[in-house]
Amino acid sequence: MTLSLDTGRRIARSVHAAAHRLQLRPLTIVVLDSGGHVVVAERSDASPIGRFEIARGKAYGALALGMNSRAIMERGERQPQFVASATAALDGRVIPVPGGVLVDDASGRLVGAVGVSGDTSDNDELVAMEAITAAGLAPRGAWA
Amino acid sequence: MTLSLDTGRRIARSVHAAAHRLQLRPLTIVVLDSGGHVVVAERSDASPIGRFEIARGKAYGALALGMNSRAIMERGERQPQFVASATAALDGRVIPVPGGVLVDDASGRLVGAVGVSGDTSDNDELVAMEAITAAGLAPRGAWA
Amino acid sequence: MTLSLDTGRRIARSVHAAAHRLQLRPLTIVVLDSGGHVVVAERSDASPIGRFEIARGKAYGALALGMNSRAIMERGERQPQFVASATAALDGRVIPVPGGVLVDDASGRLVGAVGVSGDTSDNDELVAMEAITAAGLAPRGAWA
Amino acid sequence: MTLSLDTGRRIARSVHAAAHRLQLRPLTIVVLDSGGHVVVAERSDASPIGRFEIARGKAYGALALGMNSRAIMERGERQPQFVASATAALDGRVIPVPGGVLVDDASGRLVGAVGVSGDTSDNDELVAMEAITAAGLAPRGAWA
Repeated sequence: MTLSLDTGRRIARSVHAAAHRLQLRPLTIVVLDSGGHVVVAERSDASPIGRFEIARGKAYGALALGMNSRAIMERGERQPQFVASATAALDGRVIPVPGGVLVDDASGRLVGAVGVSGDTSDNDELVAMEAITAAGLAPRGAWA
Repeated sequence: MTLSLDTGRRIARSVHAAAHRLQLRPLTIVVLDSGGHVVVAERSDASPIGRFEIARGKAYGALALGMNSRAIMERGERQPQFVASATAALDGRVIPVPGGVLVDDASGRLVGAVGVSGDTSDNDELVAMEAITAAGLAPRGAWA
Repeated sequence: MTLSLDTGRRIARSVHAAAHRLQLRPLTIVVLDSGGHVVVAERSDASPIGRFEIARGKAYGALALGMNSRAIMERGERQPQFVASATAALDGRVIPVPGGVLVDDASGRLVGAVGVSGDTSDNDELVAMEAITAAGLAPRGAWA
Repeated sequence: MTLSLDTGRRIARSVHAAAHRLQLRPLTIVVLDSGGHVVVAERSDASPIGRFEIARGKAYGALALGMNSRAIMERGERQPQFVASATAALDGRVIPVPGGVLVDDASGRLVGAVGVSGDTSDNDELVAMEAITAAGLAPRGAWA
């Protein structure tokens, strides 16, 4: 396993802690390994019932296309037909809005992805990146 | 069950009564519990054969994303790719036009959703909200 | 519409009344028109969340193959591969156990089907047939 | 939410603790609310990549049909075509082997289901039941 259950739990816990600190809406977190398979998923109380699929799609799409979901969104603004068709080709598992972040280990090797859904997309992405960093890993994509 | 069959029937009956009073086109009503599962479905005579799936999608999408289908429509105007991809991730069960209304009980707890299809979307939503209120429950979202 | 909403409601009500009289487990009822489209669906309190799909499959399979679901079951005992493949060809909408009953009007014309799920299959079928008769229509298949 | 994230985490943790104590193979745990939606999912290191879907299917099938997955298995021994067709009708989300256990609260109300996969089915079910009990809830079904 490229990303351990223990690390996945730590990431999920950090996301919830950040959400609490920033007073965000209830969040759903999905942590995938580099093969796109669920390691950890957690849906906060009152997080709507479809958020697991949304969070997973943010993370899975990032892995599938090799870029954070924000970058997929930007690609979609230039080439909407590509993103729509890629989504269909990938069985609906691409959600092209921010909140899906690729995860590298200390040596720069891709080990998985985190998807967060529930607040604004920008905040979903922010807390995902914070949590990855807090777990000692490196989130793809620069951020301010 | 978060929303009883008896309550579901009352909501459906109220929708039909409102439709008759307002002289609307034939309507289809679907009442879902908070998990998104059918409690009651009723398709009026002459309501087209696909209206069940449409009404259910309005209600299910509202539950899945945590907002009335009108709000999903408005989200889609800002982020069309998000709504399209969320629909794919949720197996086609999101219809982003007005007519899907979340239902809360007296204490503000989410208990289900109502989806109406058949007249204009605005009227679909109007009668859904009226019917929810008539059943002693609270529809999400302000309305005139 | 081959089977009116009013008739569909009467059938559903009769099923529930029979279930109460016979002290059956909570039932789910689906009434389809001759095209296989939902007219009425009702899921009793405490009826499990998958029963809508099961009841609909009993009714839809009956219409799709032109015989009550009990007859499909018996066919499946002789030719299991046929029933399995027919189910796949019909997108999973065939449930080959008793409880799906075709409905004819007084002149012998097929007008729809009723599917019941929740108690034993034999009882599901029994109450479906009783309810169809109580609504002034004719259930396919002899019964004692 | 019928089953809180906090309770879901406790159940998952108890499953892992029991697995460690009994020296079981790596396990995957999925906890669903009463509507069948993921609350918590955890896949142990070295648990194969398909175990999430298997564990979820054990839990979801139990909710959909209203009986533990062991009971679905036993039903399938009597009526194999029923279980196969129910699985198709429920989009493949039924795994008819032990390990999926319904969860009731102290007042006997259904609040969700737990699915475990990875060791023998009997052990999967055993640790699921232990964990539910340890979380202060009641697993459906007698067990030794």
